[in-house]
Amino acid sequence: MGRNEVEDKVENVVDPEDEHNGDPGDKKLKQEVGEISVERLFEDQEVPSWRKQLTMRAFVVSFFLSILFTFIVMKLNLTTGIIPSLNVSAGLLGFFFVRTWTRLLQKSGLLKQPFTRQENTVIQTCVVASSGIAFSGGFGNYLLGMSESISKQSSNTHDFKNPSLGWIIGFLFVVSFLGLFSVVPLRRIMIIDFKLTYPSGTATAYLINSFHTPHGAKLAKKQVRALGKFFTFSFLWGFFQWFYHAGDNCGFLYFPSLGLEAYKYRFYFDFSTAYVGVGMICPYIINVSVLVGGILSWGLMWPLIENRKGDWYPANLKSDSMFGLQAYKVFIAIALILGDGLYNFLKVLSQTILGLSHQLLTKKLSSELPVANHSSPTSSQLSYDDKRRSQLFLKDQIPTWFAIGGYVAIAAISIGTLPHIFHQLKWYYILVIYIFAPALAFCNAYGCGLTDWSLASTYGNLAIFTIGAWAGASLGGVLVGLAACGVMMNIVSTASDLMQDFKTGYLTLASPRAMFVSQLIGTSMGCVIAPSVFWLFYNAFQDIGVPGSEYAAPNAIVFRNIAIVGVEGFSSLPKNCLLLCFVFFGAAILINLVRDRVDKKWSRYIPLPMAMAIPFYLGPYFAIDMCVGSLILFIWEKINKSKADAFGPAVASGLICGDGIWTLPASILALAGVKPPICMKFLSRGSNAEVDNFLKSLG
Amino acid sequence: MGRNEVEDKVENVVDPEDEHNGDPGDKKLKQEVGEISVERLFEDQEVPSWRKQLTMRAFVVSFFLSILFTFIVMKLNLTTGIIPSLNVSAGLLGFFFVRTWTRLLQKSGLLKQPFTRQENTVIQTCVVASSGIAFSGGFGNYLLGMSESISKQSSNTHDFKNPSLGWIIGFLFVVSFLGLFSVVPLRRIMIIDFKLTYPSGTATAYLINSFHTPHGAKLAKKQVRALGKFFTFSFLWGFFQWFYHAGDNCGFLYFPSLGLEAYKYRFYFDFSTAYVGVGMICPYIINVSVLVGGILSWGLMWPLIENRKGDWYPANLKSDSMFGLQAYKVFIAIALILGDGLYNFLKVLSQTILGLSHQLLTKKLSSELPVANHSSPTSSQLSYDDKRRSQLFLKDQIPTWFAIGGYVAIAAISIGTLPHIFHQLKWYYILVIYIFAPALAFCNAYGCGLTDWSLASTYGNLAIFTIGAWAGASLGGVLVGLAACGVMMNIVSTASDLMQDFKTGYLTLASPRAMFVSQLIGTSMGCVIAPSVFWLFYNAFQDIGVPGSEYAAPNAIVFRNIAIVGVEGFSSLPKNCLLLCFVFFGAAILINLVRDRVDKKWSRYIPLPMAMAIPFYLGPYFAIDMCVGSLILFIWEKINKSKADAFGPAVASGLICGDGIWTLPASILALAGVKPPICMKFLSRGSNAEVDNFLKSLG
Repeated sequence: MGRNEVEDKVENVVDPEDEHNGDPGDKKLKQEVGEISVERLFEDQEVPSWRKQLTMRAFVVSFFLSILFTFIVMKLNLTTGIIPSLNVSAGLLGFFFVRTWTRLLQKSGLLKQPFTRQENTVIQTCVVASSGIAFSGGFGNYLLGMSESISKQSSNTHDFKNPSLGWIIGFLFVVSFLGLFSVVPLRRIMIIDFKLTYPSGTATAYLINSFHTPHGAKLAKKQVRALGKFFTFSFLWGFFQWFYHAGDNCGFLYFPSLGLEAYKYRFYFDFSTAYVGVGMICPYIINVSVLVGGILSWGLMWPLIENRKGDWYPANLKSDSMFGLQAYKVFIAIALILGDGLYNFLKVLSQTILGLSHQLLTKKLSSELPVANHSSPTSSQLSYDDKRRSQLFLKDQIPTWFAIGGYVAIAAISIGTLPHIFHQLKWYYILVIYIFAPALAFCNAYGCGLTDWSLASTYGNLAIFTIGAWAGASLGGVLVGLAACGVMMNIVSTASDLMQDFKTGYLTLASPRAMFVSQLIGTSMGCVIAPSVFWLFYNAFQDIGVPGSEYAAPNAIVFRNIAIVGVEGFSSLPKNCLLLCFVFFGAAILINLVRDRVDKKWSRYIPLPMAMAIPFYLGPYFAIDMCVGSLILFIWEKINKSKADAFGPAVASGLICGDGIWTLPASILALAGVKPPICMKFLSRGSNAEVDNFLKSLG
Repeated sequence: MGRNEVEDKVENVVDPEDEHNGDPGDKKLKQEVGEISVERLFEDQEVPSWRKQLTMRAFVVSFFLSILFTFIVMKLNLTTGIIPSLNVSAGLLGFFFVRTWTRLLQKSGLLKQPFTRQENTVIQTCVVASSGIAFSGGFGNYLLGMSESISKQSSNTHDFKNPSLGWIIGFLFVVSFLGLFSVVPLRRIMIIDFKLTYPSGTATAYLINSFHTPHGAKLAKKQVRALGKFFTFSFLWGFFQWFYHAGDNCGFLYFPSLGLEAYKYRFYFDFSTAYVGVGMICPYIINVSVLVGGILSWGLMWPLIENRKGDWYPANLKSDSMFGLQAYKVFIAIALILGDGLYNFLKVLSQTILGLSHQLLTKKLSSELPVANHSSPTSSQLSYDDKRRSQLFLKDQIPTWFAIGGYVAIAAISIGTLPHIFHQLKWYYILVIYIFAPALAFCNAYGCGLTDWSLASTYGNLAIFTIGAWAGASLGGVLVGLAACGVMMNIVSTASDLMQDFKTGYLTLASPRAMFVSQLIGTSMGCVIAPSVFWLFYNAFQDIGVPGSEYAAPNAIVFRNIAIVGVEGFSSLPKNCLLLCFVFFGAAILINLVRDRVDKKWSRYIPLPMAMAIPFYLGPYFAIDMCVGSLILFIWEKINKSKADAFGPAVASGLICGDGIWTLPASILALAGVKPPICMKFLSRGSNAEVDNFLKSLG
């Protein structure tokens, strides 16, 4: 349910050879270059020193793109929690801006340093690191779950800590760098010795490599134009929608496009271009899973459970009470997520152990033979590419003493600081986390390299349960659990991100030292940008975390309830809720087992439990948006497959970015007190007649 | 403002060589066939006898297409009164249905008679004759202007006659056939001797000829597919819109897409696919004229006049009172229409006299030299085409005694019957009309052949003034005037339609006898179908003729007020209204003069007064729809000119037909009492807050 999980699932679900793989650069280049060496194409180009890869312009561009992507990630975070991979957009836009910049300078004769793919990688790394904080900062889950407004929706209302710009920035600074230092020394083992795949990182590297070939630059230009067109459309559409959103339940977001009865159960198309774009990027099975989940829950289960009102739960409860229907929605979703998470945790763990033991037993750490099942697409035995890449990857070293020293120093500061932020969080809890963290960070980075599947929020949930239970209910265990979750998520998430980027750097001949510095700078940016953007949203939109509103942030209440269950058990749940939870927990594991056991031909039609869980709480409206995106892509592919492959992701990115960036002026308008002038309201015929009479009586 | 006027203006405004000419078949074929003979292409095909041209299947198809087009014409009639030329759609759909039918029969081996272009012409003629009644029946102007509800909006409230199915059908039967008989004897003179152009008829003939060549059939199939696609879209969009139209001012028709302030002055896009299609068919200058007229009136004049409230007219009047702002809207529009009408009447009359005298003086009735300025696109001196066409055109004669006898007989029945329908209409008024009618019918048919410009409603207005004034106010002159208008319009309109069709028949080798029979049958169909469809609309939609509603039928109040002015003079008009009328009357003549005098390069940028007048009463919303259509076509032409030319009219026809035919189920639903479930309402922020409080108080 977290960013990396769904995002990387997106890439993982589909076989790399499958036609619905999200990344266009990958296949394009494969077709163009065939089996010939990529690095021979770039042979003439000198690789700049690592200091020269870190240019001022790269960080200026990164800074602005970071703000852009933070807005997008924040919006998605606070609406549904589904965040697609934005690596393609980051690479593409980074290329576009710097290339435009250097072209302009070149014409005026002022260009001192040409734009290289290494610099492009540095930008992409910095932007991903920075916008990654917008996810791992937990603004849509653990951090928001601590707030008073969310606590009121749960059964534990006394443990809360409202967000505030100051402590969030401080918190992020002391926890976000540990992940980087913890896995830096292992980069040689993972990238060169184990030759892990890291599909996302590899795809991004292909994209960047392709951009810097002449034909690639032309295609990139066209893609940027498509992106720009749909960005503009999406932005203007957001602007247009704004005018009709003068009050609650006003505007296109509440358009009962499938009728009022369906709308009551949140079946409607909400005209969100962002989620249409997300639907275009996500593989069909994700969109179908979300829709199936929505139909199962809001179309079938909730209406049935509602009929039991008065029997299964008291009839006089408010609709958002955690003792009524809401409890079923939240806890059954949690059961699905935990079931899926547990299965995949064990699966990845066993693969990690198997892979590691295989590596260690054969004692061929620097062997040219890749680990079974992990074939790097371009590597052949001791190929020219491999030799050149390894040589450059090993040239700039980051000393191990520096990494260990850094980790210890930051951990010490962190242990000293965190109890001041969260009074209930004792220093020894943090110490324990930091002792185990490097191992878990390694596990996550290794698993991610193997399966492209970062389990950051699963590790976070682990921390919630263990540290929360240790603290216990009386000592504010809910808050302790959520804080521990944050610490853990930040470490394991940045660790896997860093390793993905090292893979990208390896394939584009970027220096590991430059990558590391870029990550540090990006993370620092993120620690300031992400809380600031969140703060803007939090102050501009009053309904953050309110069920049924635009910014429902479903994961906040889900994470809080996980913490409550961890600390207090299942005592307060309504009738049959626990039973249903067990059924769905088991079902999630079963579905995963079936997916892995049956033939690939069939398994790709089996929905994913984690994707199914998201609409359980939110309702299926965004699933309909996403399926509209799927439908558009499907028809496009039928009409012109190659065009759809080349421009689909660019169009989708444009739709997502335009809508995401519209939230910047929207929130500024909201902060400035400028309210939309018109309310587009949807009334049933009966209440419309009453309203008309009322309006007439007003004159 | 009437159908033929605006419609034919549409074709006339633009130079035939101009690139925006509506008809694709025309140019297509010209390109394909070049200067070679059309009839040589068809040499092998036997021309069936006139009886064989009149097949059962042709009339079955005609019947259904007549219903389709009557719905469309009726809807356009009752909403704005702008009706584009539907000849292309009629020809296209007629071809498609009979071709499908014959293909099916051919496959099953049951086909007795192949589908010929003569049969196609018969269908087209029948459909045009039938749906022509929906216009000349005056359901949107004189006939509705007689009704009680319209009379209440005018200054004369006591002269009214409510529509009822019985008398309308009777009335149409006794007046609609006179036009046919009055000009039948002149067909040889107009078509063969004068070689009049009849651009619409010629274009339709090209289209039909092109369909029956192998390549034409293929293109037609593609066009039909495009038409079908947009027909479906438009129909479904109408259906979707319906759901949100639960009450007054609900739904997409009232979407304040340019803001509430602009909406107050009717500047908004009302999501009507029909008018987007109309905008695609009409030349750019028509759309621009309508928009300019809208901006001039609703953007400038009405707000300014409204500021004089209490000075120029009493401030305490209802908004639709004919003594207030409404009077300015109606009478300034009338002034523009009459000014434009008078100018063009005199222009066409002088051209008629000049042309006639030229013909008669040179005494070369069967000369091969065409009249100056009238070049028939394919005719060359005594070409093969001409010879063959003339030979077949003259083969089947309609005896002159038959035509005269028919005219006298129907006139006698008419004179006996009409006073029973309208008690105020004395038999001698009708006799006088019928004495002058053949001359006027000839004038109109001749003028139309020369300029493609039927002046039916101008002749109607002439009858209103003369017969109305003769009857006088005390004897129900308003009703007499409107009834006389009906008699006159029916005669001159059917006369020019018939001659257009004779031209089409001449060019497709269809027998004049078959054309005449087809016209008779089509007219009979129309006399039943058009009143029935009107009756359906009249009963299904309660707001027909209500200002500001969907079915505002602006021409009804305009025609009634013309009659009132004719009978009673200008006494009741508010301050300065008459002055403004004179100014605009003069301006209309001046603009026309300038248009005719300046270079063609410049004249095509000068707006048309008659098109400008339409939004004066209605508001510019449909002008915005039409400009959207223009914009779409403009962009399409920029991207792919040849495709836009070939498929633009088909797409536009699809949009118009789909929306038009949706009114069939819509009116059936309304009659059955099925009301839409949802109201999409637009409220200002302030009233929304009040409504929300009110709804909360309801619980």
